[in-house]
Amino acid sequence: MKHTITALVENKPGVLARIVGLVSGRGYNIETLCVGPTQDDTFSKITMVVPGDDHVLEQVTLQLGKLVDVLHVTDVTRRRHITREMILAEIAAGKEQRAAVMELASMFTAAIVGVRDRSLTIQMTGGEEQVRDFLRALRDFKVLDIARSGAIAVARGNDDDADN
Amino acid sequence: MKHTITALVENKPGVLARIVGLVSGRGYNIETLCVGPTQDDTFSKITMVVPGDDHVLEQVTLQLGKLVDVLHVTDVTRRRHITREMILAEIAAGKEQRAAVMELASMFTAAIVGVRDRSLTIQMTGGEEQVRDFLRALRDFKVLDIARSGAIAVARGNDDDADN
Repeated sequence: MKHTITALVENKPGVLARIVGLVSGRGYNIETLCVGPTQDDTFSKITMVVPGDDHVLEQVTLQLGKLVDVLHVTDVTRRRHITREMILAEIAAGKEQRAAVMELASMFTAAIVGVRDRSLTIQMTGGEEQVRDFLRALRDFKVLDIARSGAIAVARGNDDDADN
Repeated sequence: MKHTITALVENKPGVLARIVGLVSGRGYNIETLCVGPTQDDTFSKITMVVPGDDHVLEQVTLQLGKLVDVLHVTDVTRRRHITREMILAEIAAGKEQRAAVMELASMFTAAIVGVRDRSLTIQMTGGEEQVRDFLRALRDFKVLDIARSGAIAVARGNDDDADN
């Protein structure tokens, strides 16, 4: 099963290296990882997606929480959460191919964020399944460059909400 | 100066750990980092933003390119490129506060991707400056959880384009 793990850490050199080292040191492949400062520059938030056995990943999560400079670790897979990912793709498209790229963008409610004579830049956001569909749909195009953010996740509102 | 470095690597355990270790081993703080598989599952693309001296980061980029399982490294800062980032924020909002959150979303062309009785989930995408503005604007709200993807970047189309 895929686990989405978030960690709030001190924004210092070396913290990310220790976290990535601990997870991959156990032989787990980090499928996607995102890290960036929070509203408070002194902290960074890490989101990582790691496929693996529930019990062992629970141990990894506990050990991550014990690392110096790590404030809080959550396996959001066990909680209500929303996950989104972003893809940025530079697609070869002269004037004749533009209509097909725009149709692709429209189907995925993606945005054209760059236009050049021979290429268009598409920005697409979505959940895991939409991202998979989009990557598959891209096979029909000539992709000059592509980058993906990896999944980011937030926990949903208070557990005492009426709909729980 | 901030450098945006992209790397195409083999999608295997340990590769990310070596890259992060090399950069932070030189004392550089990785401000944001994203990694995820490309269209071809056997490869992952890493985008990282590292503030630092031009000359030394050039050396780091060269050394990254020599690591095992690293196919290609580019400092896109030196090329035409488009950079985008995504923020996901869970904002406390009962029925009375919803209008203010929707106004915020509308100003930043952000999307409401989750609605609960007491909270709304906003997904915002933009360039570096828009992201900074959005994070500042969020200070007026009660943020229950927040995650950011970090910058992802793609190189623009061919260098022989007419507008170069």
